[in-house]
Amino acid sequence: MVSCSKQKLRTGDEMPVLGLGTWKMQNPKQVVYQAIEAGWRHIDCACDYDNEIEVGAGMRKAIDAGVCKREDLWVTSKLWNTYHAKEHVKAACQKTLQDLGLDYLDLYLVHFPIALKYVPFEERYPPEWTYDPASANPKLEFADIPLHETWQAMEVLVEEGLVKNIGVCNYSAPLVMDLMRYARIKPAINQIELHPKLTQEALLDYCGTQGLAITGFSPFGSGSYVELGMDRGHKMLEEPVLQAIASSHGKTTAQVLLRWGIQRGTSLVPKTSNAERLKENLNVFDFELSEEEVANISAMNLNVRYNDPGEFCKGMGGAYPIYA
Amino acid sequence: MVSCSKQKLRTGDEMPVLGLGTWKMQNPKQVVYQAIEAGWRHIDCACDYDNEIEVGAGMRKAIDAGVCKREDLWVTSKLWNTYHAKEHVKAACQKTLQDLGLDYLDLYLVHFPIALKYVPFEERYPPEWTYDPASANPKLEFADIPLHETWQAMEVLVEEGLVKNIGVCNYSAPLVMDLMRYARIKPAINQIELHPKLTQEALLDYCGTQGLAITGFSPFGSGSYVELGMDRGHKMLEEPVLQAIASSHGKTTAQVLLRWGIQRGTSLVPKTSNAERLKENLNVFDFELSEEEVANISAMNLNVRYNDPGEFCKGMGGAYPIYA
Repeated sequence: MVSCSKQKLRTGDEMPVLGLGTWKMQNPKQVVYQAIEAGWRHIDCACDYDNEIEVGAGMRKAIDAGVCKREDLWVTSKLWNTYHAKEHVKAACQKTLQDLGLDYLDLYLVHFPIALKYVPFEERYPPEWTYDPASANPKLEFADIPLHETWQAMEVLVEEGLVKNIGVCNYSAPLVMDLMRYARIKPAINQIELHPKLTQEALLDYCGTQGLAITGFSPFGSGSYVELGMDRGHKMLEEPVLQAIASSHGKTTAQVLLRWGIQRGTSLVPKTSNAERLKENLNVFDFELSEEEVANISAMNLNVRYNDPGEFCKGMGGAYPIYA
Repeated sequence: MVSCSKQKLRTGDEMPVLGLGTWKMQNPKQVVYQAIEAGWRHIDCACDYDNEIEVGAGMRKAIDAGVCKREDLWVTSKLWNTYHAKEHVKAACQKTLQDLGLDYLDLYLVHFPIALKYVPFEERYPPEWTYDPASANPKLEFADIPLHETWQAMEVLVEEGLVKNIGVCNYSAPLVMDLMRYARIKPAINQIELHPKLTQEALLDYCGTQGLAITGFSPFGSGSYVELGMDRGHKMLEEPVLQAIASSHGKTTAQVLLRWGIQRGTSLVPKTSNAERLKENLNVFDFELSEEEVANISAMNLNVRYNDPGEFCKGMGGAYPIYA
């Protein structure tokens, strides 16, 4: 039985392998409070999720109620694309800290390897993808900021004590390779889309050799994209391979998906706004998939990516196929 | 009829769309001379091909014989992975110029987005992939040199007049995106593997929007890898789709492959050491594929990559999946 529920990072810090995803969460204050009551200790946030004030309020409520202390929680957030310039990184981090009501983050990640034109906080927050969403033809506007400049500013956040660990999201292997060349403080994490239709073994292996731990987002695959209309009609939670394995263990397909990710050595950030599923998703440490079951699930791989800016921003005036 | 046989680069320079590939060429001096006699005006070289002295002798022989002048030729070469440090880039370029017997290159490319540990010229040239090939377990040794440092040194070569254009090879889209952010002198070319089983539309589209022209290497797909045992048993030149189209035009499948690449707007660097095929490969400007034929060939795409350091260097002590 694999009972370890922490992922050790290169700093020595240990991150709970299951984090509560907050993207698209309904009633974040209530759900986050319920989640912490149910045992969740890792909350995965981002400026772009447009709910850090509410998520922070949920954490504060739990701390004030004595459910846990701040130091029992692992809180991650992410630098949005419009704040890549060295003069904006710290302000963006401080804004996130203020919204969450915290004085440090456990982990701060570069959300995408894409630098977009700066939008001041007072003008629009979060700024999302398009520079002028009110326009008849909303467009992306890129900013000439190389990734190494952004990373240098991330390193300063560690040195100034605002964040304990830094990392990236959505970095393919060549970007991680280059990052490893220029980083003074090496990245602790690469958070990437991972599920049985996008298993990314080569990227996992490579990051492993470089000391980056992997967090998988969208662990339920298409299930995370139904409400966005980006699920391509796939039905991950109803896949027969998963149903058969789930049934043989007396578990749900969602639990099998989480278990598969954990046994591959990754952390995961599943989201639910449902109180029952908060408990269900955490209840994955009392069973183990066989190697064959893990392999059979991995064999579902189709290299299907649901979350690809190159696809969902098509027609916004620029190509940005970060996975091509 | 598409009769244009030049590809216009961002500097205004025009590069012949068909270049003679020299990787694995037999009798380079003789073949290069024959090629220039047959009408080739673009020669694609690299330090790593271990034949720049012979290739240069072939060019010199043609120039001395009055077949063409230096300025009629387009000569490309490539910076090898072991020379990525800013203090080595110029020396590597000068060594290539010396070997080729030239005082400038038309185009100089970063060969791979991989920095390997420096090997002095006098120790081993070209140094290839492994740091100590005589070892019982030859290994890659990486160097902590970020790509932006290498690019800055490439820019200096332009400013000092050693090369007229600079570019990259084997850069996926996110690397090109980052390069576009930090480049003072923007890259003219991305040279990548392209054939009907690896059509890379998204990368072509993106580079197009950024003003990078594309050169495709290995235009014959698996055909370029038979002698290396890296062809995976594929038979590109015998593919029925290609044979039928070739037959309807009274052309060879090789000619159809070149025509397909040209009509997609790319330049190509096919290699042959055979005098007849030198003429055959150049004889692709008297026919045109229909849009449907181009589409049918592109529909063969399987995202198969024959030239992947992450694969062919496996077991050499490190992962380097530059396409993961």
